[in-house]
Amino acid sequence: MQAALREVAAKIDRVIAEDAFPESIQPAFLRDSVRDYPGRGGKRLRPALLIWCCGLLGGDPCRAWLPAAAVEVWHNWTLVHDDIIDRDVLRRGVPTAHCRLRDAVAAAPFRQDGAEAERQGMNFAVLCGDLQQAWANHLLSRAVESGLRAETVTGALRRMQELGGRALISGEALDVAFSLRSPLEINPEEVLEMIRLKTGALLRLAAELGAMTALDDATPEREETRMLGDFAEACGVAFQLRDDVLGIFGDETKLGKAVGNDLKEAKPTVLLLRALALAAPAVRRELLASLHLPEYTPEHLKRVRQWLRESGAAESVAADCRKLATRARDLLAVFPANRYRDYLLEFTDYLTVRER
Amino acid sequence: MQAALREVAAKIDRVIAEDAFPESIQPAFLRDSVRDYPGRGGKRLRPALLIWCCGLLGGDPCRAWLPAAAVEVWHNWTLVHDDIIDRDVLRRGVPTAHCRLRDAVAAAPFRQDGAEAERQGMNFAVLCGDLQQAWANHLLSRAVESGLRAETVTGALRRMQELGGRALISGEALDVAFSLRSPLEINPEEVLEMIRLKTGALLRLAAELGAMTALDDATPEREETRMLGDFAEACGVAFQLRDDVLGIFGDETKLGKAVGNDLKEAKPTVLLLRALALAAPAVRRELLASLHLPEYTPEHLKRVRQWLRESGAAESVAADCRKLATRARDLLAVFPANRYRDYLLEFTDYLTVRER
Repeated sequence: MQAALREVAAKIDRVIAEDAFPESIQPAFLRDSVRDYPGRGGKRLRPALLIWCCGLLGGDPCRAWLPAAAVEVWHNWTLVHDDIIDRDVLRRGVPTAHCRLRDAVAAAPFRQDGAEAERQGMNFAVLCGDLQQAWANHLLSRAVESGLRAETVTGALRRMQELGGRALISGEALDVAFSLRSPLEINPEEVLEMIRLKTGALLRLAAELGAMTALDDATPEREETRMLGDFAEACGVAFQLRDDVLGIFGDETKLGKAVGNDLKEAKPTVLLLRALALAAPAVRRELLASLHLPEYTPEHLKRVRQWLRESGAAESVAADCRKLATRARDLLAVFPANRYRDYLLEFTDYLTVRER
Repeated sequence: MQAALREVAAKIDRVIAEDAFPESIQPAFLRDSVRDYPGRGGKRLRPALLIWCCGLLGGDPCRAWLPAAAVEVWHNWTLVHDDIIDRDVLRRGVPTAHCRLRDAVAAAPFRQDGAEAERQGMNFAVLCGDLQQAWANHLLSRAVESGLRAETVTGALRRMQELGGRALISGEALDVAFSLRSPLEINPEEVLEMIRLKTGALLRLAAELGAMTALDDATPEREETRMLGDFAEACGVAFQLRDDVLGIFGDETKLGKAVGNDLKEAKPTVLLLRALALAAPAVRRELLASLHLPEYTPEHLKRVRQWLRESGAAESVAADCRKLATRARDLLAVFPANRYRDYLLEFTDYLTVRER
């Protein structure tokens, strides 16, 4: 799968780099910003999912390049706006869009000072994401050029607004809203729904567009399309649950990021909320007291892990994750075997049983 | 025309209010925000332009309702993001989206304090505009339901990304960028280009979609479509030039807003930049000194008006405005007379020779 994934990534890199849409964007520094995230590479998991779902159903992968590039650019605009909302300074080890735009505004001919540069950098980053959203739609509208029926392209565009727009953005908004409430007020089921929207919906979109492309079908209602959508959503939710587990139980050297960050930010994960619900009152108080700390020693993390294990929360989340992965594999098993099915099975493991 | 405009507005109000897209948006306060601006009414000039251009070419106006609603919702998301960027507190006399969302975040169950509520209100308003952008595309994708060919709808969606997305947002970004530079560094021609993008592109889009709907044509390349696009863009630029003139020469009681605001904000209008370019050095210095003042007395405004007149700038901008209005009327004169042509002629006057 890794070789096939690299092949997809190389092709998607090229489709995005060669697309003319951003060329006439003004001013020039904003044009550069629009091309920045989509040009930073990355694994291109969503395009691969789309193309392999298309291949699984016997579709011509050549017809799937533009929809795949569209989903990837869509993913990137959501990252630009998320980074503004979270005030993150790094994305894949490089300054975020609003930081780079702040630097552009601090330089000649603008020469804005600190706070004003910061504010205007955010403003331009809002417009950068808006432009990328339009770019993603434009890429998808061009899919008629690769032989898809216009009915299919219109249906795909409609679905992109429903899943990539309404569902994903609702998920992002719920995530922000949860971060503003006490973890004790949030139900783990609400968080699962948020994950389904924020992470699951875009993977569902990729899978559905792959199927709609293969079948040249304007609706997401065909049995195969629904099944592949369900498969992708299950992978997405399992991926996120696994991410939360690794965020506390993971190996920092494998993960490449600090374990304990979720505790520092008091992130209301399903793992934490289940532990709070299941633990004895004394342990619940200890758990709550171990949120928002400036630093986490190995001893501290060890104790938190013990509470999460003893409460049964760790096993309960791991079981959910296994169940989702099994469901995903079962959905794939219904389709006839071909190399795309092998890729997708490996993709499922890659997302759900990973160590990093 | 006013009666026909009211009829369009009533119908568009209904199409937008009854559309199901926002129903499943979460959380509920964000769903309310998404419906807020599009539900505030207003003149619905862009939908009227679209529908009348469709009628002018003999098209069935019933087919144009969804594209017209789409252009109106598109216009509204740009207002939500513009209001964030400008930190405006009122829109049509009612609190802006980010102010209302700030209030939602300050209330239960979030109870965020001043600065944090402010920041999170902005964050949710970014997501509100993103959702409205998706909603606008969704409305347009549904136009197949009113009998348009899918090819036409795909072409219309593509054009919406080019004009409503790339061109309009570039115009907004240029406007922000100009506001960060000294007026002496900006060329009036650059400002004209910004107006063409920020104001002209969306009116061009409305006219082109009206023509493409009438002709059931997937491209904006037909002669009629291009001419109506040029007509609408000319109206848009003339409207903005007129707006800048009224901003200094207008009658406050007719305008309903303070004359002198553009001077207070040192807005680099074509009018101001031409005056700076044409005036003698002593007057140029006086003009520059009269920017950014906290208040403008009638005497002060009288002197500024005199400088703008004596430099020839006022007459030069008025002449441009007249030229654009004449060009717009000439473009319409080519089409056979019907009631839609009468509406569009009156619409031209309404935008370009208005007093308020």
